[in-house]
Amino acid sequence: MKILILHGPNLNLLGKREPENYGTKTLQEINTLLAALAGELKIETEIHQSNSETFIVEKIQASLDNFDGILINPAAYTHTSIAIRDAITAVYRPCVEVHLSNIHAREEFRHTSLIAPVCIGQVSGFGHNSYLLGLRALVEYIKEEK
Amino acid sequence: MKILILHGPNLNLLGKREPENYGTKTLQEINTLLAALAGELKIETEIHQSNSETFIVEKIQASLDNFDGILINPAAYTHTSIAIRDAITAVYRPCVEVHLSNIHAREEFRHTSLIAPVCIGQVSGFGHNSYLLGLRALVEYIKEEK
Amino acid sequence: MKILILHGPNLNLLGKREPENYGTKTLQEINTLLAALAGELKIETEIHQSNSETFIVEKIQASLDNFDGILINPAAYTHTSIAIRDAITAVYRPCVEVHLSNIHAREEFRHTSLIAPVCIGQVSGFGHNSYLLGLRALVEYIKEEK
Amino acid sequence: MKILILHGPNLNLLGKREPENYGTKTLQEINTLLAALAGELKIETEIHQSNSETFIVEKIQASLDNFDGILINPAAYTHTSIAIRDAITAVYRPCVEVHLSNIHAREEFRHTSLIAPVCIGQVSGFGHNSYLLGLRALVEYIKEEK
Amino acid sequence: MKILILHGPNLNLLGKREPENYGTKTLQEINTLLAALAGELKIETEIHQSNSETFIVEKIQASLDNFDGILINPAAYTHTSIAIRDAITAVYRPCVEVHLSNIHAREEFRHTSLIAPVCIGQVSGFGHNSYLLGLRALVEYIKEEK
Amino acid sequence: MKILILHGPNLNLLGKREPENYGTKTLQEINTLLAALAGELKIETEIHQSNSETFIVEKIQASLDNFDGILINPAAYTHTSIAIRDAITAVYRPCVEVHLSNIHAREEFRHTSLIAPVCIGQVSGFGHNSYLLGLRALVEYIKEEK
Amino acid sequence: MKILILHGPNLNLLGKREPENYGTKTLQEINTLLAALAGELKIETEIHQSNSETFIVEKIQASLDNFDGILINPAAYTHTSIAIRDAITAVYRPCVEVHLSNIHAREEFRHTSLIAPVCIGQVSGFGHNSYLLGLRALVEYIKEEK
Amino acid sequence: MKILILHGPNLNLLGKREPENYGTKTLQEINTLLAALAGELKIETEIHQSNSETFIVEKIQASLDNFDGILINPAAYTHTSIAIRDAITAVYRPCVEVHLSNIHAREEFRHTSLIAPVCIGQVSGFGHNSYLLGLRALVEYIKEEK
Amino acid sequence: MKILILHGPNLNLLGKREPENYGTKTLQEINTLLAALAGELKIETEIHQSNSETFIVEKIQASLDNFDGILINPAAYTHTSIAIRDAITAVYRPCVEVHLSNIHAREEFRHTSLIAPVCIGQVSGFGHNSYLLGLRALVEYIKEEK
Amino acid sequence: MKILILHGPNLNLLGKREPENYGTKTLQEINTLLAALAGELKIETEIHQSNSETFIVEKIQASLDNFDGILINPAAYTHTSIAIRDAITAVYRPCVEVHLSNIHAREEFRHTSLIAPVCIGQVSGFGHNSYLLGLRALVEYIKEEK
Amino acid sequence: MKILILHGPNLNLLGKREPENYGTKTLQEINTLLAALAGELKIETEIHQSNSETFIVEKIQASLDNFDGILINPAAYTHTSIAIRDAITAVYRPCVEVHLSNIHAREEFRHTSLIAPVCIGQVSGFGHNSYLLGLRALVEYIKEEK
Amino acid sequence: MKILILHGPNLNLLGKREPENYGTKTLQEINTLLAALAGELKIETEIHQSNSETFIVEKIQASLDNFDGILINPAAYTHTSIAIRDAITAVYRPCVEVHLSNIHAREEFRHTSLIAPVCIGQVSGFGHNSYLLGLRALVEYIKEEK
Repeated sequence: MKILILHGPNLNLLGKREPENYGTKTLQEINTLLAALAGELKIETEIHQSNSETFIVEKIQASLDNFDGILINPAAYTHTSIAIRDAITAVYRPCVEVHLSNIHAREEFRHTSLIAPVCIGQVSGFGHNSYLLGLRALVEYIKEEK
Repeated sequence: MKILILHGPNLNLLGKREPENYGTKTLQEINTLLAALAGELKIETEIHQSNSETFIVEKIQASLDNFDGILINPAAYTHTSIAIRDAITAVYRPCVEVHLSNIHAREEFRHTSLIAPVCIGQVSGFGHNSYLLGLRALVEYIKEEK
Repeated sequence: MKILILHGPNLNLLGKREPENYGTKTLQEINTLLAALAGELKIETEIHQSNSETFIVEKIQASLDNFDGILINPAAYTHTSIAIRDAITAVYRPCVEVHLSNIHAREEFRHTSLIAPVCIGQVSGFGHNSYLLGLRALVEYIKEEK
Repeated sequence: MKILILHGPNLNLLGKREPENYGTKTLQEINTLLAALAGELKIETEIHQSNSETFIVEKIQASLDNFDGILINPAAYTHTSIAIRDAITAVYRPCVEVHLSNIHAREEFRHTSLIAPVCIGQVSGFGHNSYLLGLRALVEYIKEEK
Repeated sequence: MKILILHGPNLNLLGKREPENYGTKTLQEINTLLAALAGELKIETEIHQSNSETFIVEKIQASLDNFDGILINPAAYTHTSIAIRDAITAVYRPCVEVHLSNIHAREEFRHTSLIAPVCIGQVSGFGHNSYLLGLRALVEYIKEEK
Repeated sequence: MKILILHGPNLNLLGKREPENYGTKTLQEINTLLAALAGELKIETEIHQSNSETFIVEKIQASLDNFDGILINPAAYTHTSIAIRDAITAVYRPCVEVHLSNIHAREEFRHTSLIAPVCIGQVSGFGHNSYLLGLRALVEYIKEEK
Repeated sequence: MKILILHGPNLNLLGKREPENYGTKTLQEINTLLAALAGELKIETEIHQSNSETFIVEKIQASLDNFDGILINPAAYTHTSIAIRDAITAVYRPCVEVHLSNIHAREEFRHTSLIAPVCIGQVSGFGHNSYLLGLRALVEYIKEEK
Repeated sequence: MKILILHGPNLNLLGKREPENYGTKTLQEINTLLAALAGELKIETEIHQSNSETFIVEKIQASLDNFDGILINPAAYTHTSIAIRDAITAVYRPCVEVHLSNIHAREEFRHTSLIAPVCIGQVSGFGHNSYLLGLRALVEYIKEEK
Repeated sequence: MKILILHGPNLNLLGKREPENYGTKTLQEINTLLAALAGELKIETEIHQSNSETFIVEKIQASLDNFDGILINPAAYTHTSIAIRDAITAVYRPCVEVHLSNIHAREEFRHTSLIAPVCIGQVSGFGHNSYLLGLRALVEYIKEEK
Repeated sequence: MKILILHGPNLNLLGKREPENYGTKTLQEINTLLAALAGELKIETEIHQSNSETFIVEKIQASLDNFDGILINPAAYTHTSIAIRDAITAVYRPCVEVHLSNIHAREEFRHTSLIAPVCIGQVSGFGHNSYLLGLRALVEYIKEEK
Repeated sequence: MKILILHGPNLNLLGKREPENYGTKTLQEINTLLAALAGELKIETEIHQSNSETFIVEKIQASLDNFDGILINPAAYTHTSIAIRDAITAVYRPCVEVHLSNIHAREEFRHTSLIAPVCIGQVSGFGHNSYLLGLRALVEYIKEEK
Repeated sequence: MKILILHGPNLNLLGKREPENYGTKTLQEINTLLAALAGELKIETEIHQSNSETFIVEKIQASLDNFDGILINPAAYTHTSIAIRDAITAVYRPCVEVHLSNIHAREEFRHTSLIAPVCIGQVSGFGHNSYLLGLRALVEYIKEEK
C-alpha cells in the first residue's frame, strides 16, 4: 500500500509560525513521525510540502496510477481551492483531510472546507497528531475497502 | 487517567440504522473496541449512551470531579445544543468530538457544530474508527498537558 | 395495522391554550376522535403526549419493532429537533406530520420544519381535524405500499 | 355547499409526468375520485385545470358570488404568484392548498409557499389523496364556521 | 398627448376587496375620476384592467407607436414580473408606477418593486388619489421633456 | 389647515448639486412653488430646511400642537434615522414622504426607507413636482379624514 | 402573590464555572438573596434549577394554577427552546427573563432570545443582581396590573 | 428530427428594443437564419414567439408527442417561471436555453436561471448567433443520444 | 457617587406618545422617581434629555472627569449611533442601557443594540421601572468595583 | 485571425475523470476536433492546458500582442480566480467562456462565474461540443467587430 | 491651495481614549503636525473637530466656494452617515478619508465605509501618520488634476 | 532597514491596462519612484512583481530572515488568497497593503480584503502615489517600533 502525503502552503514554516495555533514541532519532525508510523503500519509513503496550488493538484493527479490513498493538509487552500477538490474527485482515491489547529474554533472563513466533502473524513485540532491519526484512519479505510 | 465516553441520541440504533451513513457495527461492538483500546492505552473509561440532552449535560457536569477528559459523539445535538456546549466550557475538561459519518459531506445544517469550538478537535467520517482515533487523540493530549 | 400517535410539547394544555391558534378541543377530546376513527379504519393505535424530546425520540425508536407507521405533531420540536428527525429516518417507518395551526401563516421561524423532509407528508391548519386527516393519509399510504 | 377545485400548471400531464414525484394517477382519475367524494359529502364541485395564472386568478375572483370555498393545487404558481394570493385574500373565501408531492422534501425554492399564509391550511405529500383530504378538511371547516 | 393607463391583477375587484388596504372606490369610479382629470389636463387616455401579465406586456408594447406615456398600477406583478419591466424598457416611453396602498408599510415582499427602477417615479399610499397624482406627474414630465 | 414642510440634509444645495439626480431648481424656487400651491389649496404652510436630524425631530414634535400634517423630504436621513421615524409615530400627524430623485433606481441602500412605513404614502422621482404632488396628497387625505 | 423562579441548564455549577462570565456566587447564595428579597417584598417563591428543557416546560405549565408570575434564567435554552416559549405563551403568566452575563456582548448566537419576545422584559449583565432586579420588576408589574 | 423553437416575452420587439443589449436583427431575420440552418442540418422546426407564460408551457407540453427537442429563449421568464421549468422536466425532451445578451454581465437578478438546471446546457451572449449555436448543440446532442 | 442620566430622542414626549409602548408617565414624573431613588441610595445625579446625538456624545465625554457611571436610554440611537458607542468606550465609565418598552418584542430592527455590547448590562420592558432598576444595578456595580 | 485556446485545471484528465460530468473524450481528442474546426474556419490557434492560475494569467497577458481572441474553459478557476478575470479585462481581447458540464445544474458554488461578466458570452453543458460552439461564436464575433 | 480638515466624533478625546486603538498623541499634537506639513507643502488649511454630523455636513457644504479639497476622518460617522456622503458628492471637491486605526481589523461593522466610495481614496491604520499621508495624497492629487 | 516590495498579478501590465482604474504610469516608472523615495528615506528595498500566488507566499516567507517590513499590492489576490494572509501572519513582519485604485468604489467583491486585517494598515486609491505613501507609512512605523 502506498500513500501520498501532502502538506499545503506555509507548513514549511512550522515550528517557527504561531505556535499557539500550530504547535512547536517542525515539518521535518512531523515527517519523521509519519515515517515511523508508516513503518509500523507497513506501508510506503511519499511526502511533499508545497506552497503551490498547481503542484498539489498535479501530485494528486499523479496519484491516479501510483497511490492507494491521499493524506492532505490543504492549509489555506482548504477554503479557497476548487481545483484541489476537483483533482481529488477526479482520481477516485480515498483522501483524508487533516489540520493542525481546530479550524472550527478559529475565524469564520476557516469553518468551511471545500475539500472535506470529497474526502472520507476530516481530523482537526490535534497538532502533529492530526497527521498520525489521519494516516491510521486512511490505511484502515483502504484495508477495509479491499 | 479516566475518560468519560458519551454517545448521543439515536446511536443506540447503530447497526440497524442507515448503514450507508453509519456503518454496520452495533454500539455494543464499538464499545467493545473502545474497551480494548482503553486497555491498550492503560486508561479507565466510563461509557454512556443517551437520547437525553439533559443526561448528557449532567454527565459532563459530573466529569468535573471524576474524569480527565471527555470523548463525545453528540450526534443530532451537535447542531442544536448550546446546553452541552456550555457544560463542556464549564467543566474545564479537554473534550474531543467524533462523528461516524463525514458531517461535512451531508445536509447543510450538519456542517456547523456548536460543540467543536469548545473542544480540542474533531474527528469525523471514519465510522467506528472515529471513536478509536478520537480516544487516542484525547489521551495523548492529556498526557502532553500534564 | 398499528399506528403510533405522538403529541409534542405543550399539547397537554390544549383547550386552555391560545384558542385562536389551537382551537377549543382538549387533547382528551382529540384522542377520543382519533380512537373513533381508528375503529372505523380498523387499525390499532397507541397515543402519547410528551414535553420531552427524549421521550419522543425513544417512542419513535420503539416503533421499529411494534408499529407500521407514525402520526406526529412535533409542536415546538418541529423547528428545533434534529434528534427526532434522525429517529424517524432511522426506523424506516412511514411518518405523517400534523399541525393544529397553519404554521405557514405564523412567525417566520415556524415556516420551516426539520421533520417534514423525512415524512411522507404534512397536514397543517385544520385544528383537531389535522390529526384525523393525517391518520387517514397514513393508513392509506401503508395499505398502498403493502 | 359548492366548492371550486383548481388544478395549476402542468397537472394536465399527471400520470405521464415524473411518477416518482407525482404518482401514476391521471388528472381524470383524480377528478373522478373527487366527484365520488363530493357525492359522499353531499356537496357540489366545479373543477378546472389551467396552465394560466390569469385563468386561475379569474376563477378565484368568480368564486366571490358562486362558491363557499376553494380547493387549490397551485403547482408551480405556489412559489411565484402573488396575484393568486391577492385573489384569495380578496374574495374572503376559505381556501385549502394541496400538493401531490411533499414540497418540503424537494428543492429549496419549493419549501416556501406564497399561497399558504392566506389559506386555512395546507396538505402536501400524499399523492392524489392530498386532494381528497383537502376537500374533507375544507368541507368540515365551512360546516363548522356556519 | 395620449396616455396609456393600466390596472393590474385583482383591481377589477376594487371596492369589494379589503377596503382597509385599497379604499372603497370601485375601479369604475376611479376611471371616471381619471377621465375627468384627463379632460382638465387636455390629454387623451386609454384605460385597461387585466389580470393577465401577457395582456399588460402587449399593451405596453403597443404604446411604442400610439402613446406618449404609461401610467401603471402593476399590483401583484410589481414584485414578480420581469416581463413587464422589460416591456417598459423596450418601448422607451416614460412610465409612472402607482399603488393604492402604501406598499412600504405592508409585507416584506411588497417593499421591493421590479418595475420602479425603470419608471420615472412611484406614487404609493394615497388610495385612488395615487392615480390622479401619478397622471399629473406623468403629464408634466412629458411636457417638460418636449 | 396648517402644514409643516421639512427639507432634509443637503437640500439647501439644490440647483447646484448633481442636477442629473436632483434637477436644476433651487430650494428657494421650490419653496415659491409650494407657497403658490398652498395659496391655491387655501392652506397655511411653514417651511424649514435643516441638515440636523435633531432639528427635524424637534420640528416634528412641535407639530403636535400646531400642524394638521407633515410633508417631508428626509433626504439622507430616509435610510438612517429611526429618531425621525419615532417622532412621526409619536405625534399622530399624517405625514407624506417625498423624494426628488427616484430612490428605487439608485444605490441599493437608498431602496429602503425607515420613514415610509409610518407615513400615509411616498412620492418619489418627479423632481420638484414630487413636493407639489405630495402636498396635494396630504391635503386631500386630511380633508377626507375630517 | 406567588412567584415561580426557574434556573436553566448549567446554573447548578455557578461559582465554579467561568467566573469572568458568571461571577463567583453559587446558586445557593443567589437563592438565599432571592429568599431575602422575597421576604422584604412580602411574596412567596418556589425555586427550581434544572438542566432539563422538559422539566422547565412542565414547571411553567404548572404555574397555570399556582403562580402569579415567572422569573426565569433560561441560560442555554434562551436561544434554542421554542418549547419554553410556547409554554410561557400558553399559561398567560407575566414572565421576566434574566441573565447573569451581558448576552449582548458575547457570541453572536447569544444575542437573540426566543424567550424575550413573550416576556414582559429582560434584565441582563448584572451577575446575581440580575435576578434581584428581575424579581422586583416582576412583582411591581403584577401589582400594577391588579 | 423535429425541433420546437420558442421565443419568450418581448422578443417580438427585437431590432427595435435596446440594440446595445439585444443587437439590431429583427425576430423575423433571426427566424430566417434559423430556417436556413435547419435546412443545412436537415431537420424540421416549428417556431413560436409568445409573451404568454401559459402559451410557452403548453407548447412545451405539446412537444411530448411531436418534437425531439426544444430550443428556448425564455427571456424574462428565465428568472421567474417555475411553470416553464416544470413543463420541461415533465416532457422528458432535451432542451437548450439561449440568450441574446450575456445575462451573467447584467443585473444581479438575471444571473440565476430557473430553467438552465433542467436543460442540457445554456448559450448566452452572442446575439442572434446564440440561437444558431444552440440549435447546433441541440441537434448534435439528440443525434448522439440516439 | 455621581451618576449621569441621559434620556435619548423623543423621550420628552413621554406620556403623550404611544402609551401602549411607553406607558403613561411623563418624563418629569420619571425624573422625580429617579430623584427619589437617588436620595434613597445616597447618590447624586444629573439628568438630561436630548434629541441630539451630539449632545449625548458630549455629555458622555464630559463624564470622564465628573461622573462615576452613566444610565442611558438611547431610544432611537440604540440602533444607529456608533458615535455614542465610541463615546462610552472612550470614557471608561460603567454604563447601563435601559428601555421603557421590550425592544426584543418589537420591530426586527429594534432587536439589535449597538450600545449594549459596551455597557455592563441592559434592562428593557418595564416602563419607567426600567430606569429605577437600571439605576440600582449601576450603583451596586460601582460599589462592588470600588 | 489567431485564437488562444486555454484549458484550465484538471482538464488534462479528461476521458478518465467523471465521465458522467465531463464525457468520454480525452483532451487530445478535443484538441484534434478544435484543430479541424480551425482549419474549416481558416483561423490559426494555439492551445494550452494548465493547472496553474499563473500560467493561464500569463498566457492571457501574452495575447495582448499575439491573438485576436481567447477561448477559455477556466474549470475550477471559473469560481475563484479574480486574477484571470483581471487579465482578461486588461488585454482588451474578446473572450468566450466554455464548460463541458452544465455548471448551472451542479453544486451551488459552480453557478456563479467570476469570468463570464468580462467575456462576450458563455457556453456550458454540451461536452466537447461546448468548445466547438464557443470557437464558432468567438470567430464570428471578431469578424463582425472588424 | 486651501484644504479643509475635519475630525469626526470623539476625536477630541485623542490621547486619553483607548491608546491601543488610537495611539497616544492628542488631537492638538496631530493638528500641530498637520500645520507643519501644510507649511512644508505650502498650502493653507482650516481644521475643525466636531461631534456633530450636521456641523460636518455644513463645513463640507461650505467648501464649495472656499476649499480645493477635503481631508476627513469621519470616525463613527464613516459607517452611518449618508448625509456626509451626500455632502461630499454635492460639492464636487476631492476628498480623502483617513483613519487612525486599521478599521479592516476591527469589528465587522467598521469594515464598510459609506464615505470611501465617494472619496479619491482611503488611508487607514497608521495612527496620526494616516492624517499626514492623507494630506500629502490629497495635495498631490489636486496638483495633478490642475 | 530593508523593505520587501511585492507587486501582485497583472501589475506588469500597468500603463497599458485600464488607465481609468490604474493610471498611466508603467510598473517600471513606479519602481523608479520607489527607488528614489527609498534613497531619500535611506532604506534598502527589493522589488518583485509576480502573477504567482506561490511566488508571493514564498517571498514573504523569505522575509523572515532578510527584511524589516513588507509593502504589498496583492491586486486580485487581495480578495482570494488566504495563503498570502497566512504567510504574513507567520513571518511576524509589519506589512502595508496598497492599491492603485480605490477598491471601496469598485465591484462589491473588491470591498473586502483578506490581507488588510493582518497588516498595519491600508492605502488605496491614489494611483502610483499609494505605493509611495505606503512605503513612508511602513518605514515610519518600523522606526517607531524600534
